[in-house]
Order: sequence, then C-alpha cells, then structure tokens
Amino acid sequence: VAQWSAPDAQMEAFVDDLIAKMTLDEKIGQLTLLTSDWESTGPTMRDTYKQDIRSGRVGAIFNAYTADYTRELQKVAVENHRLKIPLLFGYDVIHGHRTIFPISLGEAASWDMEAIEKSARVSALEATAEGIHWTFSPMVDIARDARWGRISEGAGEDVYLGSKIARARVRGYQGDDLRATDTLLATAKHFAGYGAAQAGRDYHTVDISERTLRDVYLPPFQATVDEGVATFMTSFNEYDGVPASGSRYLLTDVLRDQWGFDGFVVTDYTSINEMVPHGYARDLKQAGEQALNAGVDMDMQGAVFMENLAKSVEQGLVDVADIDTAVRRILEMKYRLGLFEDPYRYADNARQEATLYKPEFLEAARDVARKSMVLLKNEGNVLPLAASAKRIAVIGPLGNSKPDMIGSWAAAGDRGTRPVTVFEGMQANARDGVNVEYVKGASYEFADEGKTDGFAEALALAERSDVIVAAMGEKWDMTGEAASRTSLDLPGNQQALLEQLVATGKPVVLVVLSGRPNSITWADENVPAILHAWYPGTQGGHAIADVVYGDYNPSGKLPVTFPRTVGQAPIHYDMKRTGRPIELGEPGAKYVSRYLNTSNDPLYRFGYGLSYTTFGYSPVVLSAPSMGAGGTITASATIANTGDVAGEEVVQLYVRDLVGSVTRPVQELKGFEKIELQPGESRTVSFSIKPADLAFTRQDMTHGWEPGEFELWIAPSSGAEASTPVTFTLTE
Amino acid sequence: VAQWSAPDAQMEAFVDDLIAKMTLDEKIGQLTLLTSDWESTGPTMRDTYKQDIRSGRVGAIFNAYTADYTRELQKVAVENHRLKIPLLFGYDVIHGHRTIFPISLGEAASWDMEAIEKSARVSALEATAEGIHWTFSPMVDIARDARWGRISEGAGEDVYLGSKIARARVRGYQGDDLRATDTLLATAKHFAGYGAAQAGRDYHTVDISERTLRDVYLPPFQATVDEGVATFMTSFNEYDGVPASGSRYLLTDVLRDQWGFDGFVVTDYTSINEMVPHGYARDLKQAGEQALNAGVDMDMQGAVFMENLAKSVEQGLVDVADIDTAVRRILEMKYRLGLFEDPYRYADNARQEATLYKPEFLEAARDVARKSMVLLKNEGNVLPLAASAKRIAVIGPLGNSKPDMIGSWAAAGDRGTRPVTVFEGMQANARDGVNVEYVKGASYEFADEGKTDGFAEALALAERSDVIVAAMGEKWDMTGEAASRTSLDLPGNQQALLEQLVATGKPVVLVVLSGRPNSITWADENVPAILHAWYPGTQGGHAIADVVYGDYNPSGKLPVTFPRTVGQAPIHYDMKRTGRPIELGEPGAKYVSRYLNTSNDPLYRFGYGLSYTTFGYSPVVLSAPSMGAGGTITASATIANTGDVAGEEVVQLYVRDLVGSVTRPVQELKGFEKIELQPGESRTVSFSIKPADLAFTRQDMTHGWEPGEFELWIAPSSGAEASTPVTFTLTE
Repeated sequence: VAQWSAPDAQMEAFVDDLIAKMTLDEKIGQLTLLTSDWESTGPTMRDTYKQDIRSGRVGAIFNAYTADYTRELQKVAVENHRLKIPLLFGYDVIHGHRTIFPISLGEAASWDMEAIEKSARVSALEATAEGIHWTFSPMVDIARDARWGRISEGAGEDVYLGSKIARARVRGYQGDDLRATDTLLATAKHFAGYGAAQAGRDYHTVDISERTLRDVYLPPFQATVDEGVATFMTSFNEYDGVPASGSRYLLTDVLRDQWGFDGFVVTDYTSINEMVPHGYARDLKQAGEQALNAGVDMDMQGAVFMENLAKSVEQGLVDVADIDTAVRRILEMKYRLGLFEDPYRYADNARQEATLYKPEFLEAARDVARKSMVLLKNEGNVLPLAASAKRIAVIGPLGNSKPDMIGSWAAAGDRGTRPVTVFEGMQANARDGVNVEYVKGASYEFADEGKTDGFAEALALAERSDVIVAAMGEKWDMTGEAASRTSLDLPGNQQALLEQLVATGKPVVLVVLSGRPNSITWADENVPAILHAWYPGTQGGHAIADVVYGDYNPSGKLPVTFPRTVGQAPIHYDMKRTGRPIELGEPGAKYVSRYLNTSNDPLYRFGYGLSYTTFGYSPVVLSAPSMGAGGTITASATIANTGDVAGEEVVQLYVRDLVGSVTRPVQELKGFEKIELQPGESRTVSFSIKPADLAFTRQDMTHGWEPGEFELWIAPSSGAEASTPVTFTLTE
Repeated sequence: VAQWSAPDAQMEAFVDDLIAKMTLDEKIGQLTLLTSDWESTGPTMRDTYKQDIRSGRVGAIFNAYTADYTRELQKVAVENHRLKIPLLFGYDVIHGHRTIFPISLGEAASWDMEAIEKSARVSALEATAEGIHWTFSPMVDIARDARWGRISEGAGEDVYLGSKIARARVRGYQGDDLRATDTLLATAKHFAGYGAAQAGRDYHTVDISERTLRDVYLPPFQATVDEGVATFMTSFNEYDGVPASGSRYLLTDVLRDQWGFDGFVVTDYTSINEMVPHGYARDLKQAGEQALNAGVDMDMQGAVFMENLAKSVEQGLVDVADIDTAVRRILEMKYRLGLFEDPYRYADNARQEATLYKPEFLEAARDVARKSMVLLKNEGNVLPLAASAKRIAVIGPLGNSKPDMIGSWAAAGDRGTRPVTVFEGMQANARDGVNVEYVKGASYEFADEGKTDGFAEALALAERSDVIVAAMGEKWDMTGEAASRTSLDLPGNQQALLEQLVATGKPVVLVVLSGRPNSITWADENVPAILHAWYPGTQGGHAIADVVYGDYNPSGKLPVTFPRTVGQAPIHYDMKRTGRPIELGEPGAKYVSRYLNTSNDPLYRFGYGLSYTTFGYSPVVLSAPSMGAGGTITASATIANTGDVAGEEVVQLYVRDLVGSVTRPVQELKGFEKIELQPGESRTVSFSIKPADLAFTRQDMTHGWEPGEFELWIAPSSGAEASTPVTFTLTE
C-alpha cells in the first residue's frame, strides 16, 4: 500500500461530508476530465466547458498550464460554485515539461535509475511550477514490435528493466510527499497490453494469452502500484475481446482486488466512446455503464459519463454507490494534494519564473541525453573523433533540425528555437582549429524516396572534409502515437545518400536520431561507426557532441532488440527456445526454427552497447550451488576496464529456468548494475537471487517458482554468446 | 460420432483378447511409428527397425510404399511374430500421390468442394494401390502470416472455408467405408495453433488467447472430427506454454472429452523428443510420460515410448490402463481396415499397375489446377491472349522448370520428368500459327539478387514477341515446412527483370507460381495482367495454358489475404474493427488505426478473384428482418453474368455481429456457392442463416450466439466495399 493511502480519518470525514452534499450531476462532474485548448493568442477554454466548470460538471482539466491560466480556471471552479471543489490539472509531461529530456525509450537506454528519476523530478519541478498537478506518465507498456510508433514512449521490451524504470519515474514525479507543491501525480499507462498491437499498427487488436499478460505486460504496472503511483490510465486496445476501458477483469479483479491499488483510474482520450466502434457497446450510454461498472473512475474528454450516467442511474444500470466510490477516490486525491486547503497552491508566479529552464535543468538534460546514447559500432575507433579531424562535415536531414531533436510529446517544450541541433552542438563544442560545416543533403520524407536533390552538395562537402557525421533517422513524428510504420528502414532518400557518402572513402560516423529500432543492416556492414542518439531533447546537440568528441564515454545499452528487417518483427531477447532451436541443428540445417535467408539473430541484441574502452568479465562465482525456499544465492563476477580510458559499464544478470511446468524464456534479465571503472581498474559486482526472483505464472496459473536447474550469466548484453553461464539448483 | 466408430462387439472381443496376450513391450510397440528409407536403389529398412518389426516393437511404418515393398514389410511383421499384428503404413500424401494436384492452398482457391474431394479421392486411389493405409493429411491449420512457409499446406486464413475444405478432404481420403481397400485414413494436423508461429518463423512460439484458439484455430479440427477423421497429429508448437504433444488440455479435454474423437493421436516427427529442447521435459523419459498422459497414442519416429515407457510404468509414472487405451485405439483402427483378416489387402500389384497415373487422374489434376488459379488483374483484357498474339515469349525461372510445378510435399510424385511446365503447356495448347519461345532470363535464388545475367537474352526475346508471359514466383521449396521468409517479395533478380520487361512496352502477363501470398505491389501497379497459379501440379503447364488461351475461364478466389508488404503481416480479412477504425476518421486523419505510409488495405482481399466475364449482384433480399432462437433467415441475391462469355462465380455470404459480449470481426464468411452462368444468364443464390451459425465463444467462455443486430453481405469478395450490407436482428 502506498504511503499516501494510509488511513486519514480527517480526510474521510471531510470527503463523506462533501459527498453527502453533492447532487448526482455534481458527482458525475468529478468523474469528468475535459481539455483546454491553445490558440496562437494563448490558452483558451470553450465556452461550454467554462460553463461546465462553473456548474460543477467537470472535476479536472488537462492541457491547461501556466500559473496564471490555471489560477484563472481554478477561480471559475471554486468561486462560482457552492461546493468549491478545486479542479485537478493534468498534462502530458512525458519526457520533460519545458526542458525536454530524451524520449522515454532513450532514457531507458541509460539503464541509470538515478538519471531517469532525475529527469522525472525536473519534469515535475517545471510542470508543477506552471500549475500542473498530474502527468499522464509514465507509459510502462512493454513493446516488442518496432513497427509500433509508441515503442518510443516506453522503456522497451523487458519486464525487469521496464519495472525498475517505471518505479524510478513514479518516484521522480511524485516525490515522497503528495502534499509537497512540487508533487506531480503520476499515471501508469496504458493498462494493459497496448504494446502487443497486431502487426505493430497503433490501436489495433491485441490477442495474447493471459499467461503472457501476467508475465510480460502486467509486471511494470504492478511495480508502479508498489511504488505508490496515484493514477492509472486505461488503454485503447481490447484484451480478451473486451476493450480495456470496459474490462472489469483488468480494472477491478487485477488492479484493485489483486494489487490493492488505491488511486483513481482515468481512461485514455475518448476511450469510453470508442467502445461503440469496438463493437462492445451498443451506444454511448451503455459504454458509460460498462466503463463505470468495470472500474473506471474518470472519463477523459469523452463526456460519456457527463451526458449519460445520470440516466443509467435512473434506469438502475449503474449503482450510485459505485459512483460514490469513484468520486471519493478523486476527491481524496485532491485532498491529499492540499487543494481543498488552497486550490491555488500550484499557481505561484514567482516560483514559475524561478523554475523554468533553470541552468541545472538544462545541464541535467544534457547529462541524461549523453547517458542515453548507445554506441552500436566503432570499427577502428573512428570515435571519438581524432584530433587530426579538422574539417567535420555534418550531413543529413537530422543534422540541423530543431524540431526533430525532441521527439514526440514535447509537452510545453519549445520545439522551434531552444533545441540545440547536432550541427550546433558540434560547432559549439569543437576544439580550436576545427571547422564544422553542415549540408542537409537528403530527406527523411517518405515522398522523397528516389530523389537525389542535395546529394551533390553533400558529396562536395564530404570530399573537402576529414570525417563525415551523418545525422540520419526518422522525422520526430514518425514514432509516438498513431505513428506506426510497415518498414523500419531509414525513410526517404537517406540510405541512398549514406551509400554515396561511404563510397567517398571518408570515415563516416552515422548518428541515428529515431524513436524506434531501425533496420540499419547495410550501415552495420558498411559504416565504421554508428551512434544511436534517439531524440535527445533540448540539449541534444551538445550531448551528441560530448560523445562524438570524446568528452563523454558512451555507456548506453539497448532496451530493445534491433531487428535486421521488419520481417523479423516482433522480436525480443527473452523468447522461448522452441522444440527445434537453430543451435541444435547442423549449420544450415533445414528442419530447425529459422528463416530461409535471414538470420534468427537480430542486428543488435537487447542489452548491447559499446564504450570507448573495453571491459573484461571474469567467470561467474556462485555463493552456493543450490538454494531452497528460504535461500539466497549470490552471483559475482569481476569486471575490469581493459582499455585506455575511464568508462561505465552496465553489468547484466540473466537467468534461464531450464525446465518448467510451462516453457520458459531462453534468458530473463534479473539484475543489472551500472559501474564506472578507471583504466586498469576492476570491480566485483554481486547479485543476490532469491526463489521469488524466479517466479512466473505456472501451468495452474498460480504465481511462484518451481524447483529445478537454472543457468545464470553475468554479461555485457543478452544472448547466450555474451558470456558463459554457470548452473545452480533451486530445491523444494 | 463417426460411422466407423459405432460399437462393434466382435471387434471389441477380438481386441480384448489380443491385448490380454500382449506383453508391455508389445503394447508399446503398437504405439511406435518408425520410418522406412529410400535409396537410389529403392526402398530400404534399417536393420534395427527390421528387427523391431520382427519382435513386435513397432506397430506402424511410414515412408514405405509400393505393393511389393509394403507386402515384404508386412510379411516381416505377421510371419515372424506370434501375435501376427499387421503393420499400418502411413505416408505424406498431401496434394496427390503419384499424380500431383495443386498445393493445398491452391486447391483452396477453387472454393470447389467437389474438386477438392476429387483430388483427395484420386490421391487415395493411387496411394492405397501402393499399399498405403494412412495419409498425414489434411493439414487444417489456419494461417494468417504469409512469412510462414506452411501457409502453402493449408486452406488459408478462414475458419469457415477451412472447415468446409477440411471435411471435403477427409471425405475424399476416407470414403464412406473404412473396410474398402481404397480407404486412406486421414489425419487432421497439426493440433493445434501451429499457424500462429511468432513472426511467421516455422516452429516458433505460439501465444494466442484461448478465445482465439477456440474461435479461429480449432473449428477446422472439430469439423474433421464431425466428418469422421480417423487420426489426429499433434503440432510442434506450444500452446499456453505447453508443447502440443504434452497438452492434456488439447489432446484430452478438448479432443476427447468435448469433441468425442474416437480415433488415435499420432505425434509429429520426433515432437515428443522435442519437449526436452522446449524446456518442458527434463529428459526423454519424462517427455514420454507427459505425452502418453496428455493423450498421445502413437510416437512418430522419436522412439521415446519404445525406449522409456516400460520404465515409466515400472516407476508408476504411467498407468498400463492408459497404454491399453492407446493400444486399443490403434488395434481397432487396424481391425476396421480389415488388416487382421488380410494384412496384404492393400498390396495388390495388378491394382497398382492399373491405377497409377490413370488418364482420368491426370485430367482431374488439370481440371483442379485450372480451377485453383486466381486472376488478380486483367487490365484491358490482356487475357485471354488475343488471336493476334502470334509470337509468345515465356520468360522467367518458373517458365520451364519441372521441379517447381509441383511445390513442396511431392509425395511419391515425379518431380523430374512428368510435370508439364508453363512453356510446355503453352506450346502444346497453342493455336495454329502461334509460336512460343522460352528464355529463363532471371533467377529466383536469393543469392542472385542484383545479377543481370540472362536479362539481355530475355529482353531480346521480348522485343521480337507480341506478348510476354512472365512466369515468376518462388522456388518450390521456399514454402512448406521450415521454409519461412522475412520478405514476401519476388526473390532473386526477378523483380528487376520484370521491370525491364514492362519497360519494353509489350503487354506482359505475370503468371505467379508460389506457395504464399507475395507482395507483388509493383506488379499490381505496372503489369496489365496477373494470374496466380500456385504450384499447379503434374499437369500445371496445361492448366495455365487453358487459362491463358481462354480455354478455361478462371474462377478461383483467394483463400488468403495478399499483403502489400511483409510489414502488414499478420493480416486477415476477419480482423476486429478496433476503437479507432480508419473509416471513421477524415481522410488522412492521424489518430486512427493505420500506418504512416502504407494503406491498411491489403493488396488483394480474401475472396477476391476476377473472371473473363463480369458479374452483377442485385441487392440482398432477406426472408425476414429478424429471427428468434429457433428461426432461420434466408438471404438471397441475384447474380447476373453481365459479360460476353460463360463463367463461374463464387458467391460469398458475410456477416457481421455488430455488438457482442466480446468484440466481433468486421466480417465473417458464413456461406458460399460456386455457380456457372452463361452470358446474360442470371440466377438467384440463397443462403440460410440460423442462430447457431452466428455462435462464438462469448465473454464467459461458453459457445453460443447472442441476440442483437447483424449486417449481412452477399458479395464477390470480402471487404465492406464489395457490396452493400443489409441488416437483420437476432432476438432472444
């Protein structure tokens, strides 16, 4: 149970009293969340919505911010209505509010919980300073299909890493004390299974087993409950034929009864309404009944509760007691934030002025950005750039594009002027005597495939340069919501230019800016150095320069598998072994589980990432060869920096349960630690494993561990080849 | 309950008596199926296996055929052992035995149950004449991912069509009377869910909901039980974490208890053994226990039962009564075939001589082949070829390749000399004065991508011809078992040659020979005529010529969706609508379920196929606007041949259940009829719909219908655009 949900008799009396005074319409108002709008002239509110606020028909507003504007709206709510119930202000603060950090998937690549928590904390400081109480973040959806655009918004494919990151983000947003005015309520979204959209198409149907739901998709959500997350958001997809916003199984059986969640549940945008096109509800009224009765507390923007719920009560299809329960959850959250004491406590102009874009926030954004970058290839140590590289060519559509630096969900971040581009960063951080020039050269627009305008100019620059930094990838809105692709290739004519740049014979560094794994298979074979930079945020260009010039030694590791081709999707490291694993056949054997002409292996594995130094791993030492129910095994390995520069390494612990009552993944991440080592330094990293860490949904659908043999790796990445496993036994 | 499984007191007494005499090893022997081998010198049997037969340690043999050879082996079994239990001979008779018919997916495209049954009957006549009792067919796996090579072996993506075809095949193989010597026992395979392999990679993990298993993957299996199929084969994949060969849920709860199946269950090749690499069994002994206890009766080639089961009995881990049950099922099947009366009754040399490659069989193969072909495009009526086309160029790697004509699983079919190629067919059936020439021109080998050897010769032929028939597609072994691809494009350098052929300005007819849907999106935009010919079998070249010259008016319809790109996979017509269907957004709307730069629509829809004539559909007339539990509605439409030649049309009935306790597909096929119409002729086609036809697995997991509104289409293909629906109501 979360700290904030401890019993509070005073609060209960207050809320009881308030609910007793409320009309049914006012209760339904508390379950209603509506949007504000923004025009070029500033924030606006539709007249009808303003009237709704005035009359107590809306309890929460999203997309409204700034101290002034939220104060203005709050005034309408509390000074025009006898009950004086304050509004709750929500907003999509996803990877930064004003100061934009790397996209969530990029942050995940840091494997650095402090950095991720810091990012969320800075987001909360900025957002709450502008009157915002509540963010629709973190998204904790496991995603294993790179076609799906929202893969960029989560923490990748892994249950364990995803759960750790989910907790770090909740901590960062909410802090320790809901009453602090810099507390930003977090939302675990999208509940649940959204990442399994068929063929990677956003909003498409999800069909997975309950076992997979429980073992793969739910754990990060449960982790947020354990961390005390205040709210949950339902997902757009169906699970087992039922849209999530109508799923009593998800919203009540699992979330309330099994996990004991005490906060409130909001829908995603109009997702109650969408139960009609889903073919689950006959009409909006029934959709509202299904949602409320399933366990939805708040209706985002659909106005379904507002317009139908009273009638449903009248007809006996919804019980007022259930409405009261939802109202209570929402009022309690407002109470806990202190809004009944002072509805304006988040609207503080002085604080706002002092907070936004603080230098330390910008520095944090730069630091998290460079920590998020993953060095995928570095043949001949092309990176960091040699001092002899005096003429640097930055080429590519992502080389000097401010909007693209910050990815989708820029929140209130400035997309147009503040972001530091690759070119700007490379220039600003260049050593004396180094000249950096930029030519766009190519385009990422789909429609420009086949065109070669700009190639000549780019090639001319390449010819007169010592090294080429090709900044390529995807346009910022090619990932994110409703941004699914059927191909993972570099869009537009970038690949063609890249091939011509390589053909010049000049060393090429490919810096990929993208929100998804791209199938850069040709580049992997032909370009000497590749750095995946995601969308690195406001300070992105500086962060890229830090890595490229060697002011920062890259330490990121992939939180998702990079496929060789879209034809391998979905793909993830923790797959099952199957009955005919390729490694059991002779080379080239036919009757094994493989494709005819594509390797089963991905282009880059989960957990993979290089450094400017090298690390050596000792064999793993176990504290004991076996453990029983109450036992623990400690696994240790000594990691040495075997190169010439200091560097950080994410040491990863993987386990395989060899035989189960259901088949088990070939590897599962069960621990990791990011360490820094000076050249020649070594350190022993130890991980404790308890039986509970090895639990899963057993054949009979109970959750628990099973005795048997296990393999264990301490390794620099996933993949059985990454190191040699040791074996231990778990006894009854 | 199947006719053959009616109680037979005499048989029961016989089998009781026999089992009473058997040692445990002899019993286990009846559960053991081992393979024969073929060398260039003829059939062979490993010495150890021969010894096993002699000592009663093997009850069935596969891959042995010819009257002589099966007689020879049978002799070893019955003349060397005191119990004289005859061997059962199984074989992969998949789409023809000697006379090869189109691949199964191709036959499905005929939507002609008589033709499909005829193909199975001819297969049975030839196979049984060579001593074979039992075929490992039909494969009834629903397949929705064209990457999966075994999509070629089934009947496509649809539950209803697949179930009809499954029944037709069982009827064709088994006939009415198991005692007839031309009865070939059928096998429903692979049970179950095999087609849902992750990312289309053969043998890979399956993860689907139980609801989808029941509503999509199981119905064709249940249909075979209803049709009296004699045997079932387990699949390689896991379902819900349990390998199918160890799934008591599938093999006992569903197959025996719910469906009442009375035949025996055989595993797929070594699939018991494979429960060890699956990580479900610690060792082979445990795997054998899991299989037997789950409900497996016969172990194919794994020798797991043979080598371990006695020990398992000794240790009390397997009950002899369960072994007796399995033995009984197998002995009863041998009894029903009359093998105890005369073990040699299938080994009849005179019959063998009179039966193989009968002219009427070859004629049937030609007829089924042309019925299977699907005309995908015919701009400007390029097909049938005009009389003015005097010089015909056949170009492409599939234009004169005998092995490729018959696809995978050629059984005992002759791949090297008998198949009639496209070129041979085009020559043999050419009108007087028409000259047909052939140049290979391109290659389908993956390794030849980028090469242009042969292009010049092909283009020279093209230039001196009136029309080009480009025979392109995939090599015969690029589909079938263990033949998955990550791309659906034309392999090798075919696409490049095709583009150059089109650039000549000569009319091009693309004849695709392939076992899967290929993403021939460029061809669809640039080639005037496209005929999908699958792998059409021994008489394939004649059949293609029949269509191309207009001696047969094509009538096939696609049994699978053709995606535009592999990035759309998996794709199928009976998808869910989702909460944000694209049609509800404005054109180009962002927040709907779509891809950024690929249409949601497939290249060609399920049920699609053109004719040399055109058909008009009247509006649908319903016999009543609603029906209750005991009711029926008849839906009728009048179809007119509005063109100039006689033709056949597959008239299709689709239904949509608008609202359900779980979301329902956008369309489901519920009926079809293939009719022939003379020019100007019209006919009214009627379909009856009863509530039971509208049943599905409801939210509470019961199977049944729900009252509500339904849409109904009578249409030439799937897709809401194919015709205008009418609405009816199903009342309580």
